[in-house]
Amino acid sequence: MMKSSTKTKKLLFVGGDLRQIRAINEASKLGNTVYALGFGGECTQKLWEDVRIIDDFSESDDTYHAVVLPLPYTTDGKSLNTPLFERKIMLTEVFENISPKNKVLAGRCDARIKTMAETHGITLVDYSCREELAMLNAVPTAEGAIQIAMEETPFTLHASNCLVIGCGRIGKILSKMLDGIGAKVTVSARKNRDLAYGMAMGFETVPISQLSGEIGKFDIIFNTVPSMILDFDLLSKISKKTLIIDLASKPGGVDFDEARRRGIKVIWALSLPGKVAPNTAGDIICSTIFNILEEMEMNG
Amino acid sequence: MMKSSTKTKKLLFVGGDLRQIRAINEASKLGNTVYALGFGGECTQKLWEDVRIIDDFSESDDTYHAVVLPLPYTTDGKSLNTPLFERKIMLTEVFENISPKNKVLAGRCDARIKTMAETHGITLVDYSCREELAMLNAVPTAEGAIQIAMEETPFTLHASNCLVIGCGRIGKILSKMLDGIGAKVTVSARKNRDLAYGMAMGFETVPISQLSGEIGKFDIIFNTVPSMILDFDLLSKISKKTLIIDLASKPGGVDFDEARRRGIKVIWALSLPGKVAPNTAGDIICSTIFNILEEMEMNG
Amino acid sequence: MMKSSTKTKKLLFVGGDLRQIRAINEASKLGNTVYALGFGGECTQKLWEDVRIIDDFSESDDTYHAVVLPLPYTTDGKSLNTPLFERKIMLTEVFENISPKNKVLAGRCDARIKTMAETHGITLVDYSCREELAMLNAVPTAEGAIQIAMEETPFTLHASNCLVIGCGRIGKILSKMLDGIGAKVTVSARKNRDLAYGMAMGFETVPISQLSGEIGKFDIIFNTVPSMILDFDLLSKISKKTLIIDLASKPGGVDFDEARRRGIKVIWALSLPGKVAPNTAGDIICSTIFNILEEMEMNG
Amino acid sequence: MMKSSTKTKKLLFVGGDLRQIRAINEASKLGNTVYALGFGGECTQKLWEDVRIIDDFSESDDTYHAVVLPLPYTTDGKSLNTPLFERKIMLTEVFENISPKNKVLAGRCDARIKTMAETHGITLVDYSCREELAMLNAVPTAEGAIQIAMEETPFTLHASNCLVIGCGRIGKILSKMLDGIGAKVTVSARKNRDLAYGMAMGFETVPISQLSGEIGKFDIIFNTVPSMILDFDLLSKISKKTLIIDLASKPGGVDFDEARRRGIKVIWALSLPGKVAPNTAGDIICSTIFNILEEMEMNG
Repeated sequence: MMKSSTKTKKLLFVGGDLRQIRAINEASKLGNTVYALGFGGECTQKLWEDVRIIDDFSESDDTYHAVVLPLPYTTDGKSLNTPLFERKIMLTEVFENISPKNKVLAGRCDARIKTMAETHGITLVDYSCREELAMLNAVPTAEGAIQIAMEETPFTLHASNCLVIGCGRIGKILSKMLDGIGAKVTVSARKNRDLAYGMAMGFETVPISQLSGEIGKFDIIFNTVPSMILDFDLLSKISKKTLIIDLASKPGGVDFDEARRRGIKVIWALSLPGKVAPNTAGDIICSTIFNILEEMEMNG
Repeated sequence: MMKSSTKTKKLLFVGGDLRQIRAINEASKLGNTVYALGFGGECTQKLWEDVRIIDDFSESDDTYHAVVLPLPYTTDGKSLNTPLFERKIMLTEVFENISPKNKVLAGRCDARIKTMAETHGITLVDYSCREELAMLNAVPTAEGAIQIAMEETPFTLHASNCLVIGCGRIGKILSKMLDGIGAKVTVSARKNRDLAYGMAMGFETVPISQLSGEIGKFDIIFNTVPSMILDFDLLSKISKKTLIIDLASKPGGVDFDEARRRGIKVIWALSLPGKVAPNTAGDIICSTIFNILEEMEMNG
Repeated sequence: MMKSSTKTKKLLFVGGDLRQIRAINEASKLGNTVYALGFGGECTQKLWEDVRIIDDFSESDDTYHAVVLPLPYTTDGKSLNTPLFERKIMLTEVFENISPKNKVLAGRCDARIKTMAETHGITLVDYSCREELAMLNAVPTAEGAIQIAMEETPFTLHASNCLVIGCGRIGKILSKMLDGIGAKVTVSARKNRDLAYGMAMGFETVPISQLSGEIGKFDIIFNTVPSMILDFDLLSKISKKTLIIDLASKPGGVDFDEARRRGIKVIWALSLPGKVAPNTAGDIICSTIFNILEEMEMNG
Repeated sequence: MMKSSTKTKKLLFVGGDLRQIRAINEASKLGNTVYALGFGGECTQKLWEDVRIIDDFSESDDTYHAVVLPLPYTTDGKSLNTPLFERKIMLTEVFENISPKNKVLAGRCDARIKTMAETHGITLVDYSCREELAMLNAVPTAEGAIQIAMEETPFTLHASNCLVIGCGRIGKILSKMLDGIGAKVTVSARKNRDLAYGMAMGFETVPISQLSGEIGKFDIIFNTVPSMILDFDLLSKISKKTLIIDLASKPGGVDFDEARRRGIKVIWALSLPGKVAPNTAGDIICSTIFNILEEMEMNG
């Protein structure tokens, strides 16, 4: 899917985890000029030889096609997210050292960073809310969920009864992969069009409103909907032998306290791409960044 | 996906083809009271015994939960679409004989029927534009396309290079089915998010903007996009041995004249569900109608 | 799968249908020296330009790596099977004109041809009984069966209940393809190990001995077992709406008379590869022939 | 696949691990009378309430339809394989306490147990060499291999290049599951018919004899052939980033020393069913045992 871009780019990556290291390497291998700041110690050995590692903004050039911050750009609201660097880089430091000529691409942008970018006259783009990134990240998320399910159950997914709640990106890919491995897949959703998608893809379907009558039969329940689905009532109909894997971002879709009280195992699995497949997640970040740059060029 | 409706309904179906006969039978078998007008001769024998066949509106009751017209409701703009009836039923006749208490469900509603319904104070719903119907109809459309491809080629779809242009409902189902039968599937789309869906589903992908470099290698090209995609330029790169199946509604997506000039076989396959799988298409109409009625009830 | 052979070959093809024309062209495109006898009229235009078309054995050289006869080599027991040639070539003529230095490869060899080869001191190999040819032919056979099923039913294969009787080569491929298109597949077999294969592949399974209890529920029944399976008793439990497609070679696996009496539609579909996908079938013949020649070389 | 047996059975299970506990429970739930010896401590709580737990052969009845020993029946050649029991049960003890009227079913029978059975006039059947058990065990083996691959790699199996060497039971199931999860699967085998199976199933194929030219491109290599395949030469062409998972029983199919020297990670994964899915493995043992008993009955 990586489109052949006509011209190579000059990029500065600042901070991030193993995914960012992979993104840096891929960008470099594609022939771009890549600077990396915010990686120290052993992990610099993982950076490809053509990457120009710098330790400080003072070593940095003035202009890049883009400055790429991590996903998420911060975890404490003050400093950049640099788990692989020995020192903290404050957000203020970042913006004071980036020329307004540059575009900044960052992950999970909130009001704070938007304000800072505006103050410094810098164009800011949130690459983490791009649809293609969300779609492609559904793949490592689904695989991570399958890996957890395999590790946590004494039976094979093959021939097991699996329920996938929600038919968005993750629901679509997860149900396809489960089917591919031989599980008996039921898809549950609210909307008729999503149930129709499930039927057309060959799965059993059940409206969420009718889940209570069927939920007792599943060996594994995967939730992808970020609102209270598996509540007191539904949990009362689920066997203790059932495994629940909640893939929904906060607040999740399970009454965790009630599940604990009933002895039903629930695993709330968040941020799977970076955990189970950092290389794949890095490739996705890299290709998304280049999509953004290409569109910016085309739109002038 | 058919939701269990608590109460049975009283319905009048007027006109339609084999799909409507199937929808009538299914509605009847589900325990509803079903009247049928607009079916004569041999085809009345295909109607289930509990269906009440009437020959005229004068035999009809006054109130129904819904009066269901065909898909499309008319083919000539004047009379109802009644290919299985010996006499014409004019649209005016229909609306003069339906009480304003009734809701009318019809297929492919245009300004004409909307005006007539409004004039008579009748609530009109177009069931053909419901998302679940469109999604489910993608299944017989895709199967019909595959059947045509099998009939028209001297090689197996298995191991053949197939291109699916467009990643909407039909593109999604068709590419999955082709893959399921062993074809090598490439999906082409304009949007990055659609290309990402294709990648996540495991297909090769190519942006429409880069099709010209790859289009020469395909044995079969399925188009689902209703705008000029396979134009003079792209056709110039397609082998005469390639089969093009255009599934896009008018104006289609192929320069048909240029293809003819080049000796490239193009089959413009429209309205496949009713042609290749009228029973399945009838089931889809039936389930969509009950979804509409249920939602109307819930919304008061 | 075509192995890269180190040396090109000199081959004479005598007779056959469209499959053989394809095999001839493929052999020629691979760089081999190919002579063709037994093709006349328009069909010679389908032969690739490098193929040396001859009209008589007198124009033939004396030695080839192999002389390839059709599949089947004869249909009347006297003359070669040459449906695309204007004159008959008698079997005696063939063997009188082939030097004992040559190997002859032929399809469906019986006692007659074996005796003739022996009499003339010629090495004869039956390429039609090679396992890889039988395995690969299962693909066009299965696709042909699916095409017939699509053409003959008013519903989609998707979501239909399909029974595949027998779990040999065709059963394995057919059940996989049906599943890939969205059908609900049940595999029936006699042996526990075949039922286990079906289970492992994710299908429902039922022993043939217990078919009578379940056979009523299927929309389409595919038989691949060449012995009386669908007999008087089983047919008595099958609905008139069920379609039976018998893929078993003679004597077939259905009591055809009883089925007719009951109004159950049975299609006995034989020799599908040559009918629905002659090019694919020709490719398979070509690759099998080269496998044979390679093994002969390796074994001295 | 579990055939409906007309009569319930009386069975004694002696020893085994979690798989045997599952087999015992399943046999009991099917309505059979089941005695269990060789399970102590906490694990007796995992046995279903209807199972009759005994601590000694003296509490045992004289006749059973079968006495079932573990898989494998011994690990030290002297005592029964009873990892969940506090005391050792010597093999001699077993055979002295079983009446010659009984059939003994055991796993991985060797000369030793065969001699003992013969000496005591007892019919011995090795259930571990039944074809349906081997076939069904391929499922948890393949899933276990996939779980390991997911755990050991920083990328998704989806879109990765996977090589499966060998096209026996495990190769067939593993390649199907990998494909189902979105991997790009290549199957390698020696025999043309196995390569043909791979092609027919839609995979890329490469003869083992030609592996050296292609082996460099794979991210993960799964070997299922129990003879030296990945030798010095092939290993010299494999990247250090490649993960090798060897599923072949002793002596395995990899030159482990050479791989270590080259820094290539090899995981030799044996006996996966009992490790990753003991319940599924227990179900398989249970159903195999009943298949054996049923066949014995039918054969008098």
